[in-house]
Amino acid sequence: MPKKQTLWVTAADVARRAGVSRSAVSRAFSPTASIAPETRERVMEAARALGYQVNLIAREMIMQRSSMVGVVTAGFENPFRAKLLSQIIAALGRRQLTPLVMNAEDPVQIKQSLDMLLSYRIAGIIMTSASPPLDLARQYLEGEIPVVMINRASNLPGADVAVSDNGAGSAMAAQMLVEAGATRLAFVGPTRTSYNGKSRGTGFSRAVQRIAKENPRLAHPVEVHVTTADTYECGMAAAHALLKQKARPDGVFCSSDLLALGFIDAARQHFAIRVPDELRVVGFDDIPAASYENYQLTTIQQDTSGLANAATEMLVDRMNAFSGASRTHVVPVAGVVRKSCT
Amino acid sequence: MPKKQTLWVTAADVARRAGVSRSAVSRAFSPTASIAPETRERVMEAARALGYQVNLIAREMIMQRSSMVGVVTAGFENPFRAKLLSQIIAALGRRQLTPLVMNAEDPVQIKQSLDMLLSYRIAGIIMTSASPPLDLARQYLEGEIPVVMINRASNLPGADVAVSDNGAGSAMAAQMLVEAGATRLAFVGPTRTSYNGKSRGTGFSRAVQRIAKENPRLAHPVEVHVTTADTYECGMAAAHALLKQKARPDGVFCSSDLLALGFIDAARQHFAIRVPDELRVVGFDDIPAASYENYQLTTIQQDTSGLANAATEMLVDRMNAFSGASRTHVVPVAGVVRKSCT
Repeated sequence: MPKKQTLWVTAADVARRAGVSRSAVSRAFSPTASIAPETRERVMEAARALGYQVNLIAREMIMQRSSMVGVVTAGFENPFRAKLLSQIIAALGRRQLTPLVMNAEDPVQIKQSLDMLLSYRIAGIIMTSASPPLDLARQYLEGEIPVVMINRASNLPGADVAVSDNGAGSAMAAQMLVEAGATRLAFVGPTRTSYNGKSRGTGFSRAVQRIAKENPRLAHPVEVHVTTADTYECGMAAAHALLKQKARPDGVFCSSDLLALGFIDAARQHFAIRVPDELRVVGFDDIPAASYENYQLTTIQQDTSGLANAATEMLVDRMNAFSGASRTHVVPVAGVVRKSCT
Repeated sequence: MPKKQTLWVTAADVARRAGVSRSAVSRAFSPTASIAPETRERVMEAARALGYQVNLIAREMIMQRSSMVGVVTAGFENPFRAKLLSQIIAALGRRQLTPLVMNAEDPVQIKQSLDMLLSYRIAGIIMTSASPPLDLARQYLEGEIPVVMINRASNLPGADVAVSDNGAGSAMAAQMLVEAGATRLAFVGPTRTSYNGKSRGTGFSRAVQRIAKENPRLAHPVEVHVTTADTYECGMAAAHALLKQKARPDGVFCSSDLLALGFIDAARQHFAIRVPDELRVVGFDDIPAASYENYQLTTIQQDTSGLANAATEMLVDRMNAFSGASRTHVVPVAGVVRKSCT
């Protein structure tokens, strides 16, 4: 709408048209306010029809707080992160919060943007796994800016956490591999550098140990191959290391789908090993390529929408009341059976 | 940094510490101001050391303009879009501009966020291909908010455009296929619904026609298979349609890598056709999966960083002077030869 219209339409006009009180209009435009979704929608429709726009900058200056939320992620080229980011932006939008997205992998950006985020008096921060050190989160918390982490460990007082159920997912993967006939299991993942790698590796080893008690054919402990990152190339390198052995594994759980795709390609192309006949593979995430004809990857699906919603709700709670003990919201995962492990 | 510090450090303190003028400090924090990169860096370092933060919200209220730029994209799950988005955010960051990312595929988001973008008096909009109708761009332009499009057609007066050189890229693809021995060529892409699909299809047909004049073995015109979208699944469907024919193509140019991956998988798995021996395939984009061992896709690489920089520079120019004729910046592409067409 042209700017000039905004000078003439007032909140009272919108209230009249929507058939609600003046205060309902104000609440509709306030992310943390309590208001029925239908009422908010009615106000928004009236506002759109009249060409009404709140001057958010002015309002936020008065309120000393913006409706902007910093979303700190570590690159979008990883398809799982792209999927999660998309859901975070959607969840924030449903709460009338505006995302400021930052790529923590870009050093120029991280240096500049963090200052900028503080300058905007942002309403909160959502940090995803593999994003910058906790030091940063500490700075925000000191300024009473709420911080929520997704899929990363935190023992920062005041920061909330939303995590996928890595323990249950890893146990599912172990069960699937054993049921598909694997007897020599391996785990591939960045156990030293990533929260997900670590907790999925631990969860898997524990589950295999448990299953082995009633399944004498199952060799254990699990062979663990530590990768430096969560990439296709690391998956290939892991396959080269594990499959050249005489007593090679016949069932592999990779802590991410990207690792699993690289592992499968190397197994087939360099060792002529048939998947799943000679080697069963299970991934984690359920990225789009997991369902490609060539891979048909059995995987543990993360509920990206569930993670994004949980993180947003915890953030909004803290915007309303900053203090209180840290909370952890565990989001369930689901096994998706495709050809790579059947 | 804790908020209280910001009350005590002034721009004059920063100027003193950085050894620059007060006005240099102000210019350093202003995205469109002219200032030497070293000076800006010196100011930023001093500001960081002192814990100085501009109150951007207050400053922008005074200036009646923010440093926020709306980035409207159509979903990040397409890996090319994720790559481009990442570069756009980086390019804006280098100009001290803050991205507000919006997913145009989410109807709730698009309805709400557009109002919000106008409310924030954003400094400009970058719209990528497949994002919402031009009507929207028109509304921004009417409000004198600069609009730049990436990889989409526009005849909107006042909107600038940054596009990959689809013509040159498509001609390269034709040349590569012919040189690899293909004689019956096909094109696969969303020619009816996408600017890229259309211009790559046209460019390819023209190039083949040209080459055919000196190459009598080359069948033409090109067989065109129109897809509804730019997805892996559409690529598979295209392969099913084209390869079941008796006189099937032996060289295919897909208007995106995702289409090409689906095409290759279907050709191999459902028709047992060998790539590249019996079928040569060229894609467009150069997404990460193009280099996976299983695909080794020959493709036309888009310069995502070049597109992002061109778009950002044009946007900054318009922020300084809104009026003037629309400009189009054509960004070169590069052929990347891998196994799928050699």
